[in-house]
Amino acid sequence: MSAVVTLTTDFGTADGYVGAMKGVIAFIAPDAVIHDLTHDIPPQGVREAAFALYSATPFWPEGTVHCVVVDPGVGTERRPIAVRTREGRLFVGPDSGLFTLFCPPFVDDEPEVVELAERRWWRVEKPSATFHGRDVFAPVAAHLARAVDTGDFDLSDFGPSIDDMVCFDMPAPTEEGDAYRGEVVHVDHFGNVVTNLPERWVRHAGGEVVVEAGGKTMPVVGTYGDVGVGELCALVGSSGWLEVSEREGSAAERLGLAAGIPVVLRKRAGVRR
Amino acid sequence: MSAVVTLTTDFGTADGYVGAMKGVIAFIAPDAVIHDLTHDIPPQGVREAAFALYSATPFWPEGTVHCVVVDPGVGTERRPIAVRTREGRLFVGPDSGLFTLFCPPFVDDEPEVVELAERRWWRVEKPSATFHGRDVFAPVAAHLARAVDTGDFDLSDFGPSIDDMVCFDMPAPTEEGDAYRGEVVHVDHFGNVVTNLPERWVRHAGGEVVVEAGGKTMPVVGTYGDVGVGELCALVGSSGWLEVSEREGSAAERLGLAAGIPVVLRKRAGVRR
Amino acid sequence: MSAVVTLTTDFGTADGYVGAMKGVIAFIAPDAVIHDLTHDIPPQGVREAAFALYSATPFWPEGTVHCVVVDPGVGTERRPIAVRTREGRLFVGPDSGLFTLFCPPFVDDEPEVVELAERRWWRVEKPSATFHGRDVFAPVAAHLARAVDTGDFDLSDFGPSIDDMVCFDMPAPTEEGDAYRGEVVHVDHFGNVVTNLPERWVRHAGGEVVVEAGGKTMPVVGTYGDVGVGELCALVGSSGWLEVSEREGSAAERLGLAAGIPVVLRKRAGVRR
Repeated sequence: MSAVVTLTTDFGTADGYVGAMKGVIAFIAPDAVIHDLTHDIPPQGVREAAFALYSATPFWPEGTVHCVVVDPGVGTERRPIAVRTREGRLFVGPDSGLFTLFCPPFVDDEPEVVELAERRWWRVEKPSATFHGRDVFAPVAAHLARAVDTGDFDLSDFGPSIDDMVCFDMPAPTEEGDAYRGEVVHVDHFGNVVTNLPERWVRHAGGEVVVEAGGKTMPVVGTYGDVGVGELCALVGSSGWLEVSEREGSAAERLGLAAGIPVVLRKRAGVRR
Repeated sequence: MSAVVTLTTDFGTADGYVGAMKGVIAFIAPDAVIHDLTHDIPPQGVREAAFALYSATPFWPEGTVHCVVVDPGVGTERRPIAVRTREGRLFVGPDSGLFTLFCPPFVDDEPEVVELAERRWWRVEKPSATFHGRDVFAPVAAHLARAVDTGDFDLSDFGPSIDDMVCFDMPAPTEEGDAYRGEVVHVDHFGNVVTNLPERWVRHAGGEVVVEAGGKTMPVVGTYGDVGVGELCALVGSSGWLEVSEREGSAAERLGLAAGIPVVLRKRAGVRR
Repeated sequence: MSAVVTLTTDFGTADGYVGAMKGVIAFIAPDAVIHDLTHDIPPQGVREAAFALYSATPFWPEGTVHCVVVDPGVGTERRPIAVRTREGRLFVGPDSGLFTLFCPPFVDDEPEVVELAERRWWRVEKPSATFHGRDVFAPVAAHLARAVDTGDFDLSDFGPSIDDMVCFDMPAPTEEGDAYRGEVVHVDHFGNVVTNLPERWVRHAGGEVVVEAGGKTMPVVGTYGDVGVGELCALVGSSGWLEVSEREGSAAERLGLAAGIPVVLRKRAGVRR
């Protein structure tokens, strides 16, 4: 196996920025394989990036280095960091909350985090004021991937441990009588609406549940095939959270749903009331 | 040569879905090379995907595994399949019509098709209800690419043969007196309008032909350079079908053309009438 | 190290065109690594492509072959070319001005340029009238990358030298009294506005300078952190040109700036006047 680096940014793909990062990695680690995860995170979209990482990175081999640059704080005092989870996933990026979903309460264990203070792994001693992706994060990711590949690897080579990585607040769903009250946390490319209601709550609630969102009530089903084309439903999505969907359509558009809008999971008895 | 997998989806690139598929492939086949063909197929756009595959896949080396996930039927009874054409092209994806243009009458021979019933090649026995790209198609493509790479490979290892793969109906062009009547089947990124009128009909029609579309009549030329910048023309496109174009502009926008709108190829004599 | 080819096009990613080019390269050079720089150059956007190449390619290892297809002249007499800069950067593409920023006055030395007249490196003797990316540039890039990889490589194998490569006119900034007068040359994905005012002029002007653009006057700062979120500033961007930015916002949208609009760098004394 060779070194593997993935890239996740909010750079879009119309400028040369992503290409510059890839060049830096190819220069430092010519044998590294570079994969695009996504460059279409909305500008400064730390939460969206956190969701994309949560969906994508658990399926990669241990030792893959995920380089993530969504960096509203570039040019401020925010720290550059590297993160290693207990499962061996490696991340490099700014300390802006990107790795929130790999910390408790979303996982059991705190990850290991270091501040990337060792400038010998940077591309240049004095990085550009605006492009740490090219000058700090890509070179560190490339060196880290090489170190992983040789098997001789200590995260502390890159800088001192820190225990106060920035995490954003995720809205916590609540239990209210016969209902669980959550909210929309993400809308995907298809218009599927991801909520913060976890799979286990759907199971706890029992078989007879409905979901209320955007003024509509819809059944909780096992699969899209349980409803007709163009019908609304709710189901447990591929990342383990309750989603509201329209079969072959956009539930987000139809129901006017966006991040922060309430979604309620209710036992059917409650509906009869 | 190592295993090669290409990806074609309607997932867009803003979520983590494509990244999850790549991770699954990298996990199963660490030496496989993964290439993006496109992730910008319109949601549930089976025909558009079929066209993209038709344009792109003939140029790849034999043994490349093309993993295609445009899957309006996910969560229904639609079958997961693998396809091998007589030229040795390999496809993995849902049985939703994606491979129509690799079947007669578009090619001479029926491809070999198996249903992916062997769950040992899936990522998990019970795949997510919404994301077979990650749980079925990517892992099967990775295992298939590995099998191809070792040279020890039998498509029937993945499941039983079927002979009723789903194909969509392509509109057939017709001959009417001195004219061939076809229609728009695809509009590309530049606004070039691809029709279902094949190259050989343009040749049959002889040298003196014109094309009528969107209320305009335009010459059939050999190359864009035969008309001025901003002028309309028709020519045989890179995939062998007649296209309507505006030099350095969008013919689709200018003429209001979209899939299904008639396009007529006519001997010039007919115009004089 | 293996052969490396990067791709830069205006093809977008919704059609099969990029996938066809990748297949041609993988067919000719199975061990070559293929990287996407960008496929989102605006249609026929030669200047935008030149900027993307200028931002991205300096960071790649020597011997990387950059295949660039932004080709308003496809199907005319415009020449296919290959370019080698004195730093060893290699480009393949149409002679449409794409490589302007790698010629004097932007660099010290003229690059070596050949016309790709040797059709044995093309995919077919008679290329498609509309798709030289697939039939000329991708195959030449693949053969060139293989030649570089073997170390036995002479650019003249691909065709005769030419000394009249097409370059576009870049607007030259001018000095007027206590001010430098330039203009917008590029707006990036974030709405940052890149000008043709070089870093050294900012330094020449001394510490006390301001920038005027879109009817506003803003400070020249070292980094985004020197202004508040939502505030305007000017700074030297990652490619060494003065940029106008809004911290965590779009300066282009806020100020109505686009290519060609004047930007003035002025000593603060001049403002007091």
